[in-house]
Amino acid sequence: MIDLYTDEFFMSEALKQAQIGFEEGEVPVGAVIVCKDRIIAKAYNQTEKLTDATAHAEMIALTSASNYLGAKYLPECKLYVTLEPCTMCAGALFWSQIGELHFAAKDPTRGYCRVHPSLLHPKTVVKQGTLAEESGEILRLFFKKLRN
Amino acid sequence: MIDLYTDEFFMSEALKQAQIGFEEGEVPVGAVIVCKDRIIAKAYNQTEKLTDATAHAEMIALTSASNYLGAKYLPECKLYVTLEPCTMCAGALFWSQIGELHFAAKDPTRGYCRVHPSLLHPKTVVKQGTLAEESGEILRLFFKKLRN
Repeated sequence: MIDLYTDEFFMSEALKQAQIGFEEGEVPVGAVIVCKDRIIAKAYNQTEKLTDATAHAEMIALTSASNYLGAKYLPECKLYVTLEPCTMCAGALFWSQIGELHFAAKDPTRGYCRVHPSLLHPKTVVKQGTLAEESGEILRLFFKKLRN
Repeated sequence: MIDLYTDEFFMSEALKQAQIGFEEGEVPVGAVIVCKDRIIAKAYNQTEKLTDATAHAEMIALTSASNYLGAKYLPECKLYVTLEPCTMCAGALFWSQIGELHFAAKDPTRGYCRVHPSLLHPKTVVKQGTLAEESGEILRLFFKKLRN
């Protein structure tokens, strides 16, 4: 049982999005955006379905949250994503001025931290590790299935 | 008179897009994507109109080109953009595996080169400088107008 409105709760919602992606044959990464304890956007990676290399979960969630709030900047929002954002998504988070970034599993190959943590906005608070094991496991499963 | 199918011709088409952005009150950056000497996507920055901090000219052009070709990867395409891409757009260009990136004006504040030129795909050929003066001038004009 996960308590409502905790980081673990919101990350478990992001993980549910990753699970949908898994079932649809996408690299399973999920994201949700939270504003005042309410989820205002949910997305999973859809690069295959949309035939669009930019259709990462974070990008779709950011556009969706901006649409919902009618605001370009999201300093009162928190993004929960199951994998460390890539440099593209970190750049998008910079422009959005997101208040908090929570990511679960690290991505040593394509994650933004490998390049420079300052890709994010200086005011963005970063937290890492919630449900990291589960978020990494679904990715390992996906790539194992892909190889077989 | 600009010869057809030259870098200058394609960049002048990108500049026309920037001009449309200027007239609509957007930061005037324009882009076109060329495949086999044919323009398959045109876009200008629309962050204001779409209320979306990720709606840079390059992002819109990439999504549009992928839709047109039905392909996630664009190694046979060239992107012409009037300003040096930011880290988000460079990350998107990485994922798209774009064949060539031509940018006009440099952006010492937000350009990807300031962070790391390797944000792009290693196979992407980069050319800089075509119509740099004109592309920079429209931006200077825009910000001058904004301040007044």
